[in-house]
Amino acid sequence: MAGSERILCPALPGRIMSADEAASLIPNGANVGMSGFTGAGYPKAVPQALARRIRALHERGEKYRIGVWTGASTAPELDGALAEADGVELRLPYQSDPTCRRRINAGEMEYIDIHLSHVAQFVWFGFLGHLDVAVVEVSGVLEDGRLIPSSSVGNNKTWLEQADRVILEVNGWQSERLEGMHDIWYGASRPPRRQPIPILAPGDRIGEPYLRCPPEKVIAVVETHAPDRNSAFTPPGGDSRRIAGHILEFLEHEVGRGRLPPELLPLQSGVGNIANAVLAGLGEGPFENLTAYTEVLQDGMLDLIRCGRLETASATAFSLGPEALADLNANLERYRGHIILRPQETSNHPEVIRRLGVIAMNGLIEADIYGNVNSTHVMGTRIMNGIGGSGDFARNAYLSIFMTPSTAKGGAISAIVPMVSHVDHTEHDVQVIVTEQGLADLRGLSPKQRARLVIENCAHPDYRPALRDYYRRALDGAPGRHTPHLLEEAFGWHLRYGRDGHM
Amino acid sequence: MAGSERILCPALPGRIMSADEAASLIPNGANVGMSGFTGAGYPKAVPQALARRIRALHERGEKYRIGVWTGASTAPELDGALAEADGVELRLPYQSDPTCRRRINAGEMEYIDIHLSHVAQFVWFGFLGHLDVAVVEVSGVLEDGRLIPSSSVGNNKTWLEQADRVILEVNGWQSERLEGMHDIWYGASRPPRRQPIPILAPGDRIGEPYLRCPPEKVIAVVETHAPDRNSAFTPPGGDSRRIAGHILEFLEHEVGRGRLPPELLPLQSGVGNIANAVLAGLGEGPFENLTAYTEVLQDGMLDLIRCGRLETASATAFSLGPEALADLNANLERYRGHIILRPQETSNHPEVIRRLGVIAMNGLIEADIYGNVNSTHVMGTRIMNGIGGSGDFARNAYLSIFMTPSTAKGGAISAIVPMVSHVDHTEHDVQVIVTEQGLADLRGLSPKQRARLVIENCAHPDYRPALRDYYRRALDGAPGRHTPHLLEEAFGWHLRYGRDGHM
Repeated sequence: MAGSERILCPALPGRIMSADEAASLIPNGANVGMSGFTGAGYPKAVPQALARRIRALHERGEKYRIGVWTGASTAPELDGALAEADGVELRLPYQSDPTCRRRINAGEMEYIDIHLSHVAQFVWFGFLGHLDVAVVEVSGVLEDGRLIPSSSVGNNKTWLEQADRVILEVNGWQSERLEGMHDIWYGASRPPRRQPIPILAPGDRIGEPYLRCPPEKVIAVVETHAPDRNSAFTPPGGDSRRIAGHILEFLEHEVGRGRLPPELLPLQSGVGNIANAVLAGLGEGPFENLTAYTEVLQDGMLDLIRCGRLETASATAFSLGPEALADLNANLERYRGHIILRPQETSNHPEVIRRLGVIAMNGLIEADIYGNVNSTHVMGTRIMNGIGGSGDFARNAYLSIFMTPSTAKGGAISAIVPMVSHVDHTEHDVQVIVTEQGLADLRGLSPKQRARLVIENCAHPDYRPALRDYYRRALDGAPGRHTPHLLEEAFGWHLRYGRDGHM
Repeated sequence: MAGSERILCPALPGRIMSADEAASLIPNGANVGMSGFTGAGYPKAVPQALARRIRALHERGEKYRIGVWTGASTAPELDGALAEADGVELRLPYQSDPTCRRRINAGEMEYIDIHLSHVAQFVWFGFLGHLDVAVVEVSGVLEDGRLIPSSSVGNNKTWLEQADRVILEVNGWQSERLEGMHDIWYGASRPPRRQPIPILAPGDRIGEPYLRCPPEKVIAVVETHAPDRNSAFTPPGGDSRRIAGHILEFLEHEVGRGRLPPELLPLQSGVGNIANAVLAGLGEGPFENLTAYTEVLQDGMLDLIRCGRLETASATAFSLGPEALADLNANLERYRGHIILRPQETSNHPEVIRRLGVIAMNGLIEADIYGNVNSTHVMGTRIMNGIGGSGDFARNAYLSIFMTPSTAKGGAISAIVPMVSHVDHTEHDVQVIVTEQGLADLRGLSPKQRARLVIENCAHPDYRPALRDYYRRALDGAPGRHTPHLLEEAFGWHLRYGRDGHM
């Protein structure tokens, strides 16, 4: 079988095969490191072929399940297909797929929710067991076997290094001109031989544009031509715009007080409509010469580059809607000088985030009056997606901002509760909480001072009286008045929702 | 008044005065940065004089309260005296004084519990307000005004830089031979101009042995001759020894599996009897050429240096019992080459901790079956001490170990509970939990897998059946089976303790 023009390494064309053949090379019980980060750069064909195989095996009564390790979330063709086939024993470090989520919450699949900067090193350290197979999408293969990454880097460097065997998907749909945008740092090692990461500004290139991979490890090459998941962002609604407005006003205030430079500091923003609204707001605001040091480049970041506001954006993946994607591909040369894609161990590294002084903006599921944040669990027990990189950024940021509409489910759920039902970001790591109602700047405040601000500035007016009442009674009746709580009713709001359908 | 031989700077002897005179220079409402870290190097005279002044003012009906910022915990002469006089409006970032604690939990004093590595930079950033006065203990003053630090460094560099006015306590009790042991790095700056911290090994010296202080800022010099708080550690009891035994066995196992080098990786250990027992165990174990990159050097660390097991110990403070202290002072030249004291922004810096791959060992108040840890709040509302540096270390460590006896109050309290009543270290940051019952290695496990291990390996046998029962019923009845909880009884154990005096 002749290799396509994207596969220049002479050793590889002989290993081109169908996705079904490649999938048959993955043994039962294997730990499989797959590419993919926020719906970008995941393998499109092998996981679906594997899902077909699993279904057939299960129908014959044979057992077959694997461990699936990725960069972050993928798409229905990967997480959806494998979860649907009940082929996943253990999933890590992040997912956002409905079928996956259903299986995890039904207790049918194990899931480990890990800080995204920890994943690669945990594998190097041997903490997660042996990695058997890597399944990695690339844009192409050079003559010497080096790989041109596709639309995300994620943990691919680590998967290719650590796995015994490698299956490559060469996706002709990915733009060939992605070549040169990536920056893969091979200077990382295990302690005690670690060196500083030499990034001093978001645009610093410290590595090489290709992934290394010994051709002899490659057991299969599958050619694909399939788009990334690219769901459109909905245009920012009123709440998102109001949240963005509060954040922009706060940033301007901080510049005015001399606590931020006029060009701000490198931005990190979670994915989603609120984040997009903040980015849109920055496009209309007074700030110039912005930079981003973040996980994911979404539509709003491209807009900021196009309008000349954003100088440099460093990330580990794209996550673009169809229009932004078409724009990127049509104008790649214009964007090229402004974008760097790095491994997630670098994009999310505490050392770099702290050094650069990132402004971290992340979403949440619920926050409590004392400033603790739940980013992962609905009503304390059901996983939504995972912590992702929010902990890497929030703990090490110059400013850690969390944002959410004040209510969910048409007002039935308050995002501000007496006590969060799960904690992902502790009171020590949360500096600013923003809802469409307003912004609470918690820096330098004790728990009680925070509570008053969070209730008055962030909670929805419909829930404020009940929050005030809880706080007041806790202050009177709690055994301790450092963080006053009434443990017997701290989860009363969650229980009421479970019982009555509203908090 | 003539200066002592410890005050060589010609500008300063004229400013020598009594502690009472110096205390009168601190205005009402001031934010005061005081030296002191774990009962070492805190000012001995001015805070007590200030407490007397405050009491007199309060008796006359005048208002007087200040903000007290330190390195970490101090001693009765500082926290105790000022809290007793009701002179503290706001305390940060850590305390362990009984009177202070009582006032905080009575709602009479505001307290902010901050990651110790965050404190200095929050002040540089302007996040905590203006620092008016620094009160810093030193061992001596050089001719050019540079200061010889005493037995802790803490945040002194930042206090001296940021405060408008400086009061020095020159403590003749501190050994003159401390000179040269410290390493103060002046390379830190605010983003976006930050550089890597050039520490590649615990023993690397990157700064200078003295604190800078413009003599014109010094408004008072007070001579003292008073010992640091130096309470003796009780000899390790059976539980502490058993916990230490489990940890040592685990470390040997990790070396055997190739996951740790034979000389281990730099050790961090919290303060207390369990930590001391672990250090004692290391002195009898198979490990050589150990290093420590930690906050506090306690007795066990000196023992390890003396017996030739510990090559280098980097910290920000001593915390020694009377015998160890006498040994240190009698044999300082022998210890000198092995010890470095740094500012806490360096000793606790995520960048360095992550690079060196520290083995972090910290205590806890309670852990839950899913691996969340409460380090600060008794029964969810009453602060004990604070998070201190445990978050800096645990999040960034190579291995993050938490240790505790499985019960407290003679068995009335289980340290392993269904759900912790406050979260300081989330499930994402806790790798190993150890009690005298055994060790749970939580790496690579989902919440449900963790629960089974924590219950069977760590909980006291008296509490295991009830924990199993909770877990089993939660698995059956919870809305989600990722982290099964029954919110209506998640705090049942805490409430029962409040009601009946036992869990």
